[in-house]
Amino acid sequence: MLYSLLMEIVLKGNICYSQSIDKLITVENGYLVCDGKHLLGLFKKLPRQYKDFPLIDYEDSVIIPGLCDLHVHAPQYAFRGLGMDMELLDWLNTYTFPEESKYVEIDYANRAYEIFVSAVKRSATTRACVFATLHTPATVLLMEKLEKSGVVSFVGKVGMDRNCPDYLKQANPDAAYASTKAWIEDVNGRFINTTPIITPRFIPTCSDELMRKLKDLQQEYSLPVQSHLSENVSEVSWVTELCPQAKSYADAYEHFNMLGSESAATIMAHCVYCNDIDEKLLKKNGVYVAHCPQSNFNLSSGIAPIRKYLKKGIKVGLGSDVAGGCHLSVFRAMSDAIQASKLYWRLIDQSCEPLSINEAFYLGTAGGGSFFGKTGKFEPGYEFDAVVIDDTTIPTTNPLSLQERLARIIYCSGASNILAKYVRGKAV
Amino acid sequence: MLYSLLMEIVLKGNICYSQSIDKLITVENGYLVCDGKHLLGLFKKLPRQYKDFPLIDYEDSVIIPGLCDLHVHAPQYAFRGLGMDMELLDWLNTYTFPEESKYVEIDYANRAYEIFVSAVKRSATTRACVFATLHTPATVLLMEKLEKSGVVSFVGKVGMDRNCPDYLKQANPDAAYASTKAWIEDVNGRFINTTPIITPRFIPTCSDELMRKLKDLQQEYSLPVQSHLSENVSEVSWVTELCPQAKSYADAYEHFNMLGSESAATIMAHCVYCNDIDEKLLKKNGVYVAHCPQSNFNLSSGIAPIRKYLKKGIKVGLGSDVAGGCHLSVFRAMSDAIQASKLYWRLIDQSCEPLSINEAFYLGTAGGGSFFGKTGKFEPGYEFDAVVIDDTTIPTTNPLSLQERLARIIYCSGASNILAKYVRGKAV
Repeated sequence: MLYSLLMEIVLKGNICYSQSIDKLITVENGYLVCDGKHLLGLFKKLPRQYKDFPLIDYEDSVIIPGLCDLHVHAPQYAFRGLGMDMELLDWLNTYTFPEESKYVEIDYANRAYEIFVSAVKRSATTRACVFATLHTPATVLLMEKLEKSGVVSFVGKVGMDRNCPDYLKQANPDAAYASTKAWIEDVNGRFINTTPIITPRFIPTCSDELMRKLKDLQQEYSLPVQSHLSENVSEVSWVTELCPQAKSYADAYEHFNMLGSESAATIMAHCVYCNDIDEKLLKKNGVYVAHCPQSNFNLSSGIAPIRKYLKKGIKVGLGSDVAGGCHLSVFRAMSDAIQASKLYWRLIDQSCEPLSINEAFYLGTAGGGSFFGKTGKFEPGYEFDAVVIDDTTIPTTNPLSLQERLARIIYCSGASNILAKYVRGKAV
Repeated sequence: MLYSLLMEIVLKGNICYSQSIDKLITVENGYLVCDGKHLLGLFKKLPRQYKDFPLIDYEDSVIIPGLCDLHVHAPQYAFRGLGMDMELLDWLNTYTFPEESKYVEIDYANRAYEIFVSAVKRSATTRACVFATLHTPATVLLMEKLEKSGVVSFVGKVGMDRNCPDYLKQANPDAAYASTKAWIEDVNGRFINTTPIITPRFIPTCSDELMRKLKDLQQEYSLPVQSHLSENVSEVSWVTELCPQAKSYADAYEHFNMLGSESAATIMAHCVYCNDIDEKLLKKNGVYVAHCPQSNFNLSSGIAPIRKYLKKGIKVGLGSDVAGGCHLSVFRAMSDAIQASKLYWRLIDQSCEPLSINEAFYLGTAGGGSFFGKTGKFEPGYEFDAVVIDDTTIPTTNPLSLQERLARIIYCSGASNILAKYVRGKAV
């Protein structure tokens, strides 16, 4: 592995990043100077003091911040593309739960997670928030593999103790607590790039007692939280039945203080059917909405009103939601998010104008990136995650601006070629 | 080129095709026997009389009929992925018309069409209905290139003489007639696989007189017709203004007898906002709806009600609509069509149940294929178009049925690998 030691480096190429949701910065033939972990600066001309840093000239390639996948299920990757004729709850029972139960076998987990992690490694993703299964050894193995991949990730051993099959269920809240605590003790601080995250699957599969225990662990270790919120019509009405005391679906999480704390934020995937109470709770608690447009389509869920959330100042990033989504590519999630927003505007609410390409790019880089700290932008002091892209594989006959080249990289996701990936300053 | 002469051949592999919209046939380790152009049969065991035919064993690969793209704009391919923040009419004026005007230069057309045709050749598409531009030399060049690619296509020199910029407009209906007739005389019958098709761009850009002249040519040469119908809200109301006498958008075409005849059928792309009158005309005239879901999304058009059309017995195939769509892949069009139908069901009309994977596969093979005659199925007497797919690039940990493998090839479009393509019995 080149540059695997902490070393200064300069990358030269055509550089794009989102300074803010409505401001794309493009610098042709620019320089990114990295101190080995953080960006020192983005320059049109290389300042004299960096002349002696090793320089890699990526010539006419495009360099962008690494992409952030705020929601992905590692054990579902190996069966992506199956069972797509079902809605969420049937799909969970028919495909997902039987598949996840196989991860009790470490050999199976080893084979399947190898497929997942090597795909993550090949992708433009540098940061990911990952659901594993409830199995501790398999989850630890996944974390070891992700650590080796160089990608920065939060990984969750899943909590679930009700309304799920006996073969995939924690015996009781105490057992769940004990095994989750032992897992956290084992992995917390063990890795450089891989961190545990508290992961109640979603309200329907978590008893009140389990939620309280997971909250205890969240507080004890100051860990962030990830879960699902308001994905599907049947799920939302089920939650209303399960939690008659809650004022809304998000309020059912708020009841257990699971929507984020001073020390650590919460990610909620989907948020398709949030009402005013939900939205206020998301905003008040600084919850990250992981928008997963492809999964919204595939599971016939509907369309999350992302423009509305952005107008209200709610934080939003993108998720592939493999295997509700079939594609790990966050470029694909960007173009899907634009398409979803166009249909939302056309079919549901014309006061919610569609997302622009620049906005979708922001969501998949800096928007989700801020969950990980200072990442997702090429600004001084930010952790240096970068992806170098050869877009000559999307040929054209016209001279294109850098912004137009970026649009084609996003829309023709899969057609461009990733030449190099840097995470926290290291080539991976 | 292997097997470029008319010769008998047997392909062995895992075979899938749609016998009908609701019946997928799968034969593992089966045999496709071809007389050099047509299929003689699909067999579980190779019959004795074919034992001496040359056999290619594709081992564990998947063999499906070639895919049919009923609607694609060749001159838009080289700028796919640009201008996607606009709706149809603005997008035409800002991107499409300026780009198409460049095809007056044959050198430009040569470079751009080379990019398009080589992408078609690499794809799983074996049949395509293609819009060119209004320029005769460039259109002839495109036909020559498509002929060389081995793909079977209808290609249209576009008719447009009003409501378009002076730099991209036929001077008057007589000039359009004369140049279109000269073009037809030049190319009709010149190629084996490449045929002219009458192509009024759409009602807004075609004067009544031009429509009458194009109808004359249609009748004189018994050619099929392709155009656009009811794609976008603003376009539909514009047509209402332009044709106050017409009872509907389709009726504006019917007025010129452009919806198909005994001798040749018509393809209408999009059909997002058809009303009852339109639907009756589509059905009565046997018009093919070219459903282009990605373009419906990208141009914020809406969602075509494909389930409704199918229930009414209207013919439907799929189109990539490059560059309203960014992807030439008809696999992508299949998964997009399913997603679109799920959103239609969820957001617009719950009596229109979503398309299944088998139905979408049918639409992209036999559904569109029937426009070309007996093609799109592996049945005796059908022209032999086949694509051989290596899906080991979509790894899994589980044994999968052939139907499941096909689902993953469709949903993970772009991830699988095309090993070989046969058109009318020849490897291309």
